[in-house]
Amino acid sequence: MEKTAFRHELAQQLRVDSIRASDAAGSGHPTSSMSAADLMAALVDGHLRLDFDRPDHHHNDHLIFSKGHASPLLYSCFKAAGAVDDAELLSFRGFGSRMEGHPTPALPWVDVATGSLGQGLPIGVGLALTGKYLDQLPYRVWVVCGDSEMAEGSIWEAFEHAAHRELDNLTAIIDVNRLGQTGETMHGWDLDSYADRARALGWNAIAIDGHDPEQVESALTEASSTTGRPTAIIARTKKGRGVSEVEDQLGAHGKPVKDTAEAIEELGGTRDLRVDVSKPGDGELPHQFRAEGGTLPHYEKGGSEVATRKAYGQALRALGSQRADVVAMDGEVSNSTHSEQFREGHPDRYFEMYIAEQQMVAAAVGMQTRGWKPFSSTFAAFLSRAYDFVRMAAISRADLCLMGSHAGVAIGEDGPSQMALEDLAALRAVHGSTVLYPCDPNQTARLLEPMADRPGICYLRTSRGAYPTLYSPDEEFEIGGSKTVRDGDHVTLIGAGVTVHEALRAAEQLASEGLRARVLDLYSIKPVDAAALRAAAYETGALVTAEDHWPEGGLGEAVLTALAESGVQVPVRKLAVSTMPGSGKPAELLNQAGIDAESIAAAAREVTRERVT
Amino acid sequence: MEKTAFRHELAQQLRVDSIRASDAAGSGHPTSSMSAADLMAALVDGHLRLDFDRPDHHHNDHLIFSKGHASPLLYSCFKAAGAVDDAELLSFRGFGSRMEGHPTPALPWVDVATGSLGQGLPIGVGLALTGKYLDQLPYRVWVVCGDSEMAEGSIWEAFEHAAHRELDNLTAIIDVNRLGQTGETMHGWDLDSYADRARALGWNAIAIDGHDPEQVESALTEASSTTGRPTAIIARTKKGRGVSEVEDQLGAHGKPVKDTAEAIEELGGTRDLRVDVSKPGDGELPHQFRAEGGTLPHYEKGGSEVATRKAYGQALRALGSQRADVVAMDGEVSNSTHSEQFREGHPDRYFEMYIAEQQMVAAAVGMQTRGWKPFSSTFAAFLSRAYDFVRMAAISRADLCLMGSHAGVAIGEDGPSQMALEDLAALRAVHGSTVLYPCDPNQTARLLEPMADRPGICYLRTSRGAYPTLYSPDEEFEIGGSKTVRDGDHVTLIGAGVTVHEALRAAEQLASEGLRARVLDLYSIKPVDAAALRAAAYETGALVTAEDHWPEGGLGEAVLTALAESGVQVPVRKLAVSTMPGSGKPAELLNQAGIDAESIAAAAREVTRERVT
Repeated sequence: MEKTAFRHELAQQLRVDSIRASDAAGSGHPTSSMSAADLMAALVDGHLRLDFDRPDHHHNDHLIFSKGHASPLLYSCFKAAGAVDDAELLSFRGFGSRMEGHPTPALPWVDVATGSLGQGLPIGVGLALTGKYLDQLPYRVWVVCGDSEMAEGSIWEAFEHAAHRELDNLTAIIDVNRLGQTGETMHGWDLDSYADRARALGWNAIAIDGHDPEQVESALTEASSTTGRPTAIIARTKKGRGVSEVEDQLGAHGKPVKDTAEAIEELGGTRDLRVDVSKPGDGELPHQFRAEGGTLPHYEKGGSEVATRKAYGQALRALGSQRADVVAMDGEVSNSTHSEQFREGHPDRYFEMYIAEQQMVAAAVGMQTRGWKPFSSTFAAFLSRAYDFVRMAAISRADLCLMGSHAGVAIGEDGPSQMALEDLAALRAVHGSTVLYPCDPNQTARLLEPMADRPGICYLRTSRGAYPTLYSPDEEFEIGGSKTVRDGDHVTLIGAGVTVHEALRAAEQLASEGLRARVLDLYSIKPVDAAALRAAAYETGALVTAEDHWPEGGLGEAVLTALAESGVQVPVRKLAVSTMPGSGKPAELLNQAGIDAESIAAAAREVTRERVT
Repeated sequence: MEKTAFRHELAQQLRVDSIRASDAAGSGHPTSSMSAADLMAALVDGHLRLDFDRPDHHHNDHLIFSKGHASPLLYSCFKAAGAVDDAELLSFRGFGSRMEGHPTPALPWVDVATGSLGQGLPIGVGLALTGKYLDQLPYRVWVVCGDSEMAEGSIWEAFEHAAHRELDNLTAIIDVNRLGQTGETMHGWDLDSYADRARALGWNAIAIDGHDPEQVESALTEASSTTGRPTAIIARTKKGRGVSEVEDQLGAHGKPVKDTAEAIEELGGTRDLRVDVSKPGDGELPHQFRAEGGTLPHYEKGGSEVATRKAYGQALRALGSQRADVVAMDGEVSNSTHSEQFREGHPDRYFEMYIAEQQMVAAAVGMQTRGWKPFSSTFAAFLSRAYDFVRMAAISRADLCLMGSHAGVAIGEDGPSQMALEDLAALRAVHGSTVLYPCDPNQTARLLEPMADRPGICYLRTSRGAYPTLYSPDEEFEIGGSKTVRDGDHVTLIGAGVTVHEALRAAEQLASEGLRARVLDLYSIKPVDAAALRAAAYETGALVTAEDHWPEGGLGEAVLTALAESGVQVPVRKLAVSTMPGSGKPAELLNQAGIDAESIAAAAREVTRERVT
């Protein structure tokens, strides 16, 4: 069959199969699939280079469906490529099926989960950065976007960064089918409005009729041959194209077509075409950076005070010397998070993400799909900007490390906008996450190695201020562990980060009153050291938790959950920040929040009285 | 003094006072203030219309420092206007001072907190929408942006919406001082790069030298007289302008100048100029929409099943009929959240925010500063996209209502990207927030009235599926309350939303085994009904919590905290979603997650055995 005719037939098959899969599921987005079928038929027949038998092949192109709800189209392409069979296609949205409602890496050819709109393109930027600057391989990144998702600000971040880093290995295919879920988009079929934006942002932009095979072919060819900048193919399409019941109709979003048989007939019936997707050659191996070895920084116990954020930067630089796969990036605050240390030591593996936290996390997600170990840092408060990206990263089964600095009221004068007081709750409530909060520079440094090997989202919370070094440089710290930094049998004071230091001061005060307080450094908030908590409860009979965080979802509730699961029942006093802070000195704010040594000591007196009565 | 000379002197005073305030505090951002001083001198002397003695005056303009770290400049303007005295200015960043490190509404002329970059402009869009479409008053909104924050995607969302809604009452003044915190921005002094973007997005853009008084005057005049579209004034400035130690220097961000005396001398010394900021006239009162009255929808107890999201839409429409101050908006899923009901009933008070959740929450923040009662809705999972905006809204002391639909694994086939499983944790960990999760349409409807009057961030979680109507239409529901939907004295099963229905089924199973389970509908997750929980613990001796949410930070931990505070110690089993779900039928996924009736019954058997032994 001649190429144009074949692609037309293939596109019709993709439409039919999208309809059949959605019909079998009783739900799904066939019309959002049908608009992009001609674009996909051309892409898989001659442009995409992907060896389905070797999903981890270094030279494979990467295909990301940013409009993840068009999963029937993606899965229909996989079927046409021979990667899945018809029976599996028709298991769409069924329990246990890899054909999930929105794509996830349950399928080996899906790098990342999509379905939260506006995420595929920034993740594609991450993969394109990886191809150009880390792997240094010629694979291309193709991202299929919907027009509705162009309203997401994360798209702007992706456009900015892709142009700034000259990502000519990246193509965004924008399926301008005009209709969103409830109505017309802001720009309808005004292709120029998209093209003008793309060009103003430094992209090559090509506006086409997305159902015209010649225009599609020409645009894809131009995208691959354009150098120095990414290309956006802005394709005018019709939602539900080819089936009169739904074509360009409002009210046909996100549901099967009503009369499947008639729709299939209108599309020319079912087909069983197979497309030979081009395989990439073997070519060169990914670039390897040089690991020169070296050791983590050491800090003298009881020596000069070093902020944990500073230890992070120094240790990350050292880790980067030990391991060539570690990369770092920052949201334009690298002199505050001290990730500038890594930048200075390993400039080729450092990425400046400017003040674009969503793009920062998305870039990390893209990089880790290729086996790199990204560490992304900014103020902990500003990681909240990327929370949806972190949520989705967990669904992508991403392994990446986040560092948030300037935690809590202890930052002092900058005031509440800069104080992370919800980060422990937010990051604990991410599936498979790890949440660490060191109080000391040696502890911080030592935790970076297990972080880098930890699966899932690993979050390290650091402090602005410098506090005494409690641990010797050779102390070992496990994820999931804790440290008893002062022993006692009357009550246990539990803190992490700054409150460990406050708890130690409280224990001193209590000792002078004859109350022997144990101080537990619960640096691993998730997973939490349930055995140590159980022992503390059993041995001391009363607990006080103190955290520089709102009362909900943080250290205190992690402790309560662990105790509930352990079955030991003892009185617990949970101290946390419960009034809105303003500016002030750290000590003033810790006092106002009721989490300083005096507050902890008062709670310990209370809770031990409660136990006695 | 002649106008140009006066403004120059005033700008120098603003610079000097910014330096003095930062010097007194020992921290702050004088150089980021100095770059915009000429712009602000012109704005307050002849363009801004603001009666400082009547901060709530309907006709006041609104001034938002999106670059909130330039607070010394803002406070110096307030001093020049006679609104604060020099002593208060010099209390900058002190404990208890209104002169916080970043502006907050502790000051009556500050509408909203800023300091998380990229938020002031979208909030300004919200205020401009309010002026044009709700208040229908001619006040203007002036937003001072930094160039670094232009990298935030929320800026794109704001640009898109401002142009789409033709907000000619909005002016963005972009202080292009070239230097970010650690280095040069992506675009440096390339004013065209900003202007091209703004124009492509439909704005009027004026590129000027931000230190040239005539260009500044002309641009501000043009901004006020431009109709049909917003204006961006893109001003080339020098960071630290006027002090050679820091002018256009890297490394001078976010710290006092070293030699304050010399810097002040270079700027011509201290001054005590007073600027007469123009006062607006009294003019018309804000527009009043018509409240036609009516009652909330009623649902027959035990009647046909109605999803809580549907009840939300119907009740919100009714609330809009009762109260003319209620407005609604949605992230382009109004036929899923059922906010389309409100749109149909009250089209003039409904705002389509497209798929731009950050702008949606920001718009609500802007609207509530003028006394409107915004309800913003989208899938609960996608509220995570706006988490930083919610965090900051609490610091802004905003009163607004959020509704998140499609909670948990119970949504079924769409898969994990669409399932909110972290929203309870995230929203609980917001200062002063309220978190509600109804299980029944009457309960949903009844909760809307107290939500509208509730201070702070009020979050309502709704379900996709329809379940039996448990309550009669005249049942009352308080925020902070709970309902015992089945009595029993052997164990208490605690749920909310879908797990109430599962707990009721579990209680049936247990009854057949002779175990009398109480079922508590904990629809108010925050504040939580501690008295009912204490009573349940005391009277039944064992608790099971079940929630369609990750195990961290949700209903279960709210219960554990309440119990810890109550001092009653009983065994608790906390059931929650602990494996990554895929697609499937709701019942399959509830079973896999271990939160269905069978799992709850099994936990109840276990926990009662534990109590006995």
